[in-house]
Amino acid sequence: MAVYTHITDEALEDFLAQYDLGRPLAFKGIAEGVSNSNYLLETEKGRFILTVYEARVDAGDLPYFLGLMRWLADKGFPSAAPAMGRDGAALREICGKPAALSTFLSGMSAARPDAALCREAGRGLAWLHEAAGDFPHKRHNDLGHDNWMQMFAPLETAAERLKPGLAATIRGDLEHLTSDWPSDLPEGTIHADFFPDNVFFRGREFAAAIDFYFACTDALAYDVAVTLNAWCFEAEGSFNVTKAQALIGGYEERRPLSEAERTALPLLAHGAAMRFFLTRLQDWANPAKDALITPKDPLEYERKLAVHRAGVSLFGFS
Amino acid sequence: MAVYTHITDEALEDFLAQYDLGRPLAFKGIAEGVSNSNYLLETEKGRFILTVYEARVDAGDLPYFLGLMRWLADKGFPSAAPAMGRDGAALREICGKPAALSTFLSGMSAARPDAALCREAGRGLAWLHEAAGDFPHKRHNDLGHDNWMQMFAPLETAAERLKPGLAATIRGDLEHLTSDWPSDLPEGTIHADFFPDNVFFRGREFAAAIDFYFACTDALAYDVAVTLNAWCFEAEGSFNVTKAQALIGGYEERRPLSEAERTALPLLAHGAAMRFFLTRLQDWANPAKDALITPKDPLEYERKLAVHRAGVSLFGFS
Repeated sequence: MAVYTHITDEALEDFLAQYDLGRPLAFKGIAEGVSNSNYLLETEKGRFILTVYEARVDAGDLPYFLGLMRWLADKGFPSAAPAMGRDGAALREICGKPAALSTFLSGMSAARPDAALCREAGRGLAWLHEAAGDFPHKRHNDLGHDNWMQMFAPLETAAERLKPGLAATIRGDLEHLTSDWPSDLPEGTIHADFFPDNVFFRGREFAAAIDFYFACTDALAYDVAVTLNAWCFEAEGSFNVTKAQALIGGYEERRPLSEAERTALPLLAHGAAMRFFLTRLQDWANPAKDALITPKDPLEYERKLAVHRAGVSLFGFS
Repeated sequence: MAVYTHITDEALEDFLAQYDLGRPLAFKGIAEGVSNSNYLLETEKGRFILTVYEARVDAGDLPYFLGLMRWLADKGFPSAAPAMGRDGAALREICGKPAALSTFLSGMSAARPDAALCREAGRGLAWLHEAAGDFPHKRHNDLGHDNWMQMFAPLETAAERLKPGLAATIRGDLEHLTSDWPSDLPEGTIHADFFPDNVFFRGREFAAAIDFYFACTDALAYDVAVTLNAWCFEAEGSFNVTKAQALIGGYEERRPLSEAERTALPLLAHGAAMRFFLTRLQDWANPAKDALITPKDPLEYERKLAVHRAGVSLFGFS
């Protein structure tokens, strides 16, 4: 939960004056988002989310993210559409920080999605890949496989502190992942953070995806792998193959995986667990000073790594 | 800002099943409220605020607060109306804590209200006193003048730590306030926390009041005094008599003050500054362990105390 920036009424008035959205009717900080501050803003023209980008987001990437959100909305994919100011620009400033308005999306995220919701999530992800298909801009995945070795180097001591012997295990994983990582899978624009928090349902149907601030260009099947890890593990650490089959099944209704993608999926899922393990270990080793956010447990992803290391079948057969 | 309780979708579903409000469409924690957790909940029937009462609120007082909110809404005063469950009760439970739903109010609070908004606030407060006029329930003001001596006793060291010599000054204030406190002013149901945060405007007009969790039975003019302190001091510490005249003028358009109330007002304002000084000093001396909230500066009210001690004129003449 986070609202890092206090927006005065004068600042909000100056900001809104750059849009054709009428007067503000309601304004409330939202306890949501980790790297941004978010506010619900109702004006005479509708409901919006004001996002203020805090230091964790690279301001240079914002045109890419907002461009992608605009692109997806124009393609009919249900994501928040950036609102354009009178000058046609979506990215502006409030209180000296980069900020943007986007349409308010209704929908509820599912804390403990069952297999049917996993299927819906898979469908939604494939829809996203399809809608983003011709998006002309590229962004390197800074948290992708080619950076994991570098990310881990300063974290070896922290890994040992977390669990004695872990550093050597992770080094072994990294060697395996790096040497076997497939280079010829279909690439495109991926969400890269398609977690239950970021997916809305209306009733039992996929309604929308939010939070595109990790989106980048990478293998589409890697996005499926990230999503499998996020949706198909049970709280106690076991991998639920029924949910995985449902998620992949939902995905393939819109975009069938190639044989190469299916073959690569277990390795990609092992890698996807590594990516989240590494950033959680970073946050755990270097907790934020403001302490508004409890670092997520790196051991959750250490357990997921162990499951993939042991070679779980993602498809219900080995 | 605060969201202390994590509400799972199952918990929300069970909770909503007790109402006739249809399915949930959106649910977001709101960074607002100090002693409660608040969530925006949109259902098929409308928009609501879900309030979960945390430990700081005495659960025994909740029927009084919710009863007052219901009463005010029924009288046409613009405050959040508690939504009743199928069994007719407003107070329920979620995640093992007391909780209630109330209608979502639009409107914006003013961070730095000018004299015209102070006049509107005064009008709103008198409207509230009028609407609550026949409310049949009573609640003793636990933070009222008869408790200040007791509240201060364990805080003498903290006062000295805040500012050497302060303890003796406060003791002097307390003796004066206690001996001269008027006992025959008109009483009624007061808001007792009518701060700019808790008042909404639509454009330049009073739109609504929220947060009735300090409401109690006390002198109506004492509520005016609390409001004067909250709205009419400038950031640098001076008392703005123009704003005070506007606020009192707005109040008197609906409810003229008696001669006894006008005479008592400077003393009541001195006391009202004492009440907020004491609770801020308590919070400063005993900071909450969870540290989600930065204690408000007790020196702000120490300065207001000094202004009233010196005998400021609230009406522009001595």
